[in-house]
Amino acid sequence: MIEALTYAAAGVDIQAAEVNVRRIGAHVRSTHGPSVLGSFGAFAGLYHLTGLKDPVLVASTDGVGSKLELAHKLAQHEGIGRDLVNLSVNDILTAGARPLFFLDYIALHSMEHDQVEALVRGMSAACRENECALLGGETAQLPDLYQPGQYDLAGFVVGVVEREQIVDGSRVQLGDAVWALPSTGLHTNGFTLARRVIATAELDLRQPRDDLGGQSLGEALLAAHPSYLAAMRPLLAAGAVKAMAHITGGGLAGNLPRVLPAAMGADVAWGAWPVPPVFEVLRRAGGIAHEEMLRVFNMGLGFVFVVEPGVDCPGALRIGTIVPSSGDGERVVVTGAPRD
Amino acid sequence: MIEALTYAAAGVDIQAAEVNVRRIGAHVRSTHGPSVLGSFGAFAGLYHLTGLKDPVLVASTDGVGSKLELAHKLAQHEGIGRDLVNLSVNDILTAGARPLFFLDYIALHSMEHDQVEALVRGMSAACRENECALLGGETAQLPDLYQPGQYDLAGFVVGVVEREQIVDGSRVQLGDAVWALPSTGLHTNGFTLARRVIATAELDLRQPRDDLGGQSLGEALLAAHPSYLAAMRPLLAAGAVKAMAHITGGGLAGNLPRVLPAAMGADVAWGAWPVPPVFEVLRRAGGIAHEEMLRVFNMGLGFVFVVEPGVDCPGALRIGTIVPSSGDGERVVVTGAPRD
Repeated sequence: MIEALTYAAAGVDIQAAEVNVRRIGAHVRSTHGPSVLGSFGAFAGLYHLTGLKDPVLVASTDGVGSKLELAHKLAQHEGIGRDLVNLSVNDILTAGARPLFFLDYIALHSMEHDQVEALVRGMSAACRENECALLGGETAQLPDLYQPGQYDLAGFVVGVVEREQIVDGSRVQLGDAVWALPSTGLHTNGFTLARRVIATAELDLRQPRDDLGGQSLGEALLAAHPSYLAAMRPLLAAGAVKAMAHITGGGLAGNLPRVLPAAMGADVAWGAWPVPPVFEVLRRAGGIAHEEMLRVFNMGLGFVFVVEPGVDCPGALRIGTIVPSSGDGERVVVTGAPRD
Repeated sequence: MIEALTYAAAGVDIQAAEVNVRRIGAHVRSTHGPSVLGSFGAFAGLYHLTGLKDPVLVASTDGVGSKLELAHKLAQHEGIGRDLVNLSVNDILTAGARPLFFLDYIALHSMEHDQVEALVRGMSAACRENECALLGGETAQLPDLYQPGQYDLAGFVVGVVEREQIVDGSRVQLGDAVWALPSTGLHTNGFTLARRVIATAELDLRQPRDDLGGQSLGEALLAAHPSYLAAMRPLLAAGAVKAMAHITGGGLAGNLPRVLPAAMGADVAWGAWPVPPVFEVLRRAGGIAHEEMLRVFNMGLGFVFVVEPGVDCPGALRIGTIVPSSGDGERVVVTGAPRD
């Protein structure tokens, strides 16, 4: 006769899940305006859609990649929560959409209440800043898939845009201007490589560094992934924006062409924007080729957009021009970029 | 001088990601009707919302829990993809919503193309069956978080219901009838306990068993989590349904009260529905208390709903009645249930 088994003995704690729901409830509700119907804790979240003529829903899902591992090492969970919301908002912003609501999926070994609450606090703060509701979420205890203390995190955002205001790159013309909003650092891409550099070159994460303006490497790497919604809103309201790209994995060359007509590319001038010093620290320590840096990292470009040549875009930097492209090879040329 | 690092050497393969996008593209597009605008591979998915008077969006996120581990052991990925869509559809169905679109997040060590394609094939098939679009997804390579061959999976669904047709339990009255649609087995809940029983009692997963009608234990455990959308549609169209509960983690007692008014509970008759034999196999092998079985597993109840006493519900089983409840202790009494 074997010992009687229970769900708790098998590693899943239903009461811990209930405590979790109570601890995160106030954060979640702080994001709810009158559009949210029903109550926190139901099978599904309800959002009343009003005031639209011809609505198109715009949705995206993403994770924060292996920035998670670094955040975990440095016990900085709140920022990761913010990052996840902001990067999701930027993804749907590329179509001209404003966010309506966000949902999160957290998977972990067992319920670490402080950690989960910090994540949800961060997500809730970013939801309020982006004027979207944290409409639901799932915290899954998977003790056989995750190591103690480890977790994965995915986000899901739904926004809306009037059909006639969708931004899809189709109006882009040769000679149009390419502008950029600066990044704060790596944002949430390239961390698997960055962490490999740190391990290989045995870099210290906590020591202040002169080449990072007194920041530690850990601080520079965990710099927030900002939302570009507020900066883009006036330009979008003016109908000036023809295409937008969120510079994520694959860098400028991997992302800008996704929103340009097939026969067009961009000629961008190296030096037209500041490159945050953390990239040079990683490049030197890892002996990474300059070309590889541009393929993997955003190199200072957080969000890139296209307008007519005469339009002025306060707060943004003019970085280049739309040019013809054969479609073969690289469609984005970074003129003057360092080479190996 | 250390060896020059690249993204690929660090374990992230951008080309593998591109191959993946090509391999899953046809499956994804097979779910796209005229409401899907824009192209597969963009930063976000676009869904044109038409023909609604006063739309309320209904959203939910979930995973398949540790059923994943078993599916992985038995190399049955397509079914897991279907399960994820169906369980998500059931969650928003509880509010009366029909699904519009679904997004998936797959996180893994490195791109296993056959595995990911099987998952997406299963999700696409279930999306077509539920008449919803697979609007987007993310496949994240996280070589430091997951073991080779392992993956996690989360789904996000968005549906819609006319505001005046929301089902929220508020019209439920004493004496109303409780009906159920049968489950096929564990669906996607209680697998951490089930797997512990299998390990502790050293149960064989592949051998056909008489007490499972010739099925193997693996087959019985991986039985599909069905969608209850088609079965509920006629009753919903007739306006007959007052409350619906998807019986997931926590069993009947953990889920039905979530949609009932506070002063009400349910009296349900053990024996009114068939209990799939897999539950008895697990109970005996694990020496699990009967009460624990009811707290953890659905015990044969897949989806439970409440209608007025006189309403006939073809295809469903009448299992009980709405009764007064003090709100203290268990709000669902299963009369005649075996006890230890």
